[in-house]
Amino acid sequence: MRLFCSIAVVLMVTGSAIADPLPSWNDNAAKAQIIDFVGSVTDPASPEYVTPIQRVAVFDNDGTLWAEKPVYFQLLYALDKLKQKAAANPEILTSATLEAAAAGDMDAVAKSGEEGLLEIVMASHAGLSVDAFTQDVANWIKSAKHPTRNVPYTDMTYQPMLELLRFLRDEGFDTYIVSGGGIHFMRAFVEEAYGIPPEKVIGSAGVTRYAVVEGVPTILKDPGIAFIDDKAGKPVGIDNKIGKKPIFVGGNSDGDFEMLEWATSGDGPRFGLIVHHTDAEREWAYDRNSHVGKLVRGLDEGPDRGWLLVDMAKDWNRVWSGSPN
Amino acid sequence: MRLFCSIAVVLMVTGSAIADPLPSWNDNAAKAQIIDFVGSVTDPASPEYVTPIQRVAVFDNDGTLWAEKPVYFQLLYALDKLKQKAAANPEILTSATLEAAAAGDMDAVAKSGEEGLLEIVMASHAGLSVDAFTQDVANWIKSAKHPTRNVPYTDMTYQPMLELLRFLRDEGFDTYIVSGGGIHFMRAFVEEAYGIPPEKVIGSAGVTRYAVVEGVPTILKDPGIAFIDDKAGKPVGIDNKIGKKPIFVGGNSDGDFEMLEWATSGDGPRFGLIVHHTDAEREWAYDRNSHVGKLVRGLDEGPDRGWLLVDMAKDWNRVWSGSPN
Ligand SMILES: [Ca+2]
Ligand SMILES: [Ca+2]
Repeated sequence: MRLFCSIAVVLMVTGSAIADPLPSWNDNAAKAQIIDFVGSVTDPASPEYVTPIQRVAVFDNDGTLWAEKPVYFQLLYALDKLKQKAAANPEILTSATLEAAAAGDMDAVAKSGEEGLLEIVMASHAGLSVDAFTQDVANWIKSAKHPTRNVPYTDMTYQPMLELLRFLRDEGFDTYIVSGGGIHFMRAFVEEAYGIPPEKVIGSAGVTRYAVVEGVPTILKDPGIAFIDDKAGKPVGIDNKIGKKPIFVGGNSDGDFEMLEWATSGDGPRFGLIVHHTDAEREWAYDRNSHVGKLVRGLDEGPDRGWLLVDMAKDWNRVWSGSPN
Repeated sequence: MRLFCSIAVVLMVTGSAIADPLPSWNDNAAKAQIIDFVGSVTDPASPEYVTPIQRVAVFDNDGTLWAEKPVYFQLLYALDKLKQKAAANPEILTSATLEAAAAGDMDAVAKSGEEGLLEIVMASHAGLSVDAFTQDVANWIKSAKHPTRNVPYTDMTYQPMLELLRFLRDEGFDTYIVSGGGIHFMRAFVEEAYGIPPEKVIGSAGVTRYAVVEGVPTILKDPGIAFIDDKAGKPVGIDNKIGKKPIFVGGNSDGDFEMLEWATSGDGPRFGLIVHHTDAEREWAYDRNSHVGKLVRGLDEGPDRGWLLVDMAKDWNRVWSGSPN
């Protein structure tokens, strides 16, 4: 089977050299750098050649593969759920943050910081089975609309990044998501949205528990955080779940710094990519002073470390998967 | 590419129907049951057909894929390391259990229970980088010999189970290890021993931490336990890492009970397998009263639940991978 697949890959590589694998990327340095890198690590005659088994690519999700403004989309889901739950049982609003969230006071929510966001997500997500939760997210993502753009959230994935994921897979890479977002939240839609199956999603995780509930073996979501897949947690999560150091890594904020730092260190060819949100017209423009997607060290140190800063306004001729622009 | 691979799979299925995929299994009911199951879930014309993406198979390691007597092999590694460390720095022996372990008092070690074993493993494993640890285990496994059989530990994997793993993979299954053993310990040898790559190993994990050590981005092993992949932890670990319920699951002790219970519940075809250690001549005979691999509920409830109890003495014509017997 391996032989047949290898022949098929060779045929596809030949094909993709003719067709443009990244049509939503403008023909400038960023695109050329990506295509050169992939070409060199997949060419058996190249000194940079990397065997398929070591071709691991990881990507942050919020702000890297889809948008994250005005706030993380998972938080918007959590707020919807929290309002529903509080309407049925107001006693769950055990803190000022939760009360503000249920009342829709977004300023107070934003001011509550990362801890407040976690509190809201936990209060809204806990108490269901993983299966029921995933089904609920899948239903929500099919019907909910973004508060300002008024389109489904899955229309707000980035077309150029979808092309990059597909290009890498066509060239023998395993593509993973490594996100601070919740693992079960993401699994509800990322296979359809990005072609990434559940076993290639690494994320933050609440505490889960196995129990036989009325005769049915079940995985339950409990309150509490088991793992935060952000900052220094990202390399730890990758080591724990993949056990290999990726050679291609993409992010957009300082939450990705350690992952980029680790993955681009050591011998052999490595590619670090940062999506820089520079496009106030088609998307949003933000970096150093944003409460989501804050990017400081990546901007200051990234270029010297050889990381590619993708300038969304200049490097992408199309932003959204859902509509040309 | 998918089309090419599918054609290749069909060719291989045809081929494997002629060659015996499980030559080390005697031609009795256990073998027939396995082959029938795999045939039915891989035949697109069968009502039991399962798409390749859902063909997930998980196996316990100690006592299921390789031996576990007189004690878990990881403990033998830990004892070797502890003695080395204590010779250089006796102060690390901070408890009676650790002192007994360093002195080679195996009775005291056995009596210290699961907590004592964890204490020994932690004291011996912590303080290295993951890379250095993995290299050390790899060196050990190449040179160390089993205390009573005097062969390398990797000669003590079970040939019939290696054949089963290969058979499942040839038939489009993803094969995972789901073990109470340490994830980094296993990764040092399981790819070579079982053909299972690092990203398909689920295990217990110590606390790890990312740090830049003298300029080098590093994953460090700290003291402390992050996750125990045993009993009810096994379904939790599978849900967290794979995000799908396996359809084929193999174990050997009550540490696998919840994993078997969960994976064999629900709709569709499912296969539960328990390796029953009945072979005092070629391997060991133990179940209800053993301090490792204790099997009570699996024996009592397994048959009614439809799980296959593999009788090592009767069902396997060869035990060891390393030598015919
Ligand atoms: Ca991000
Ligand atoms: Ca076992």
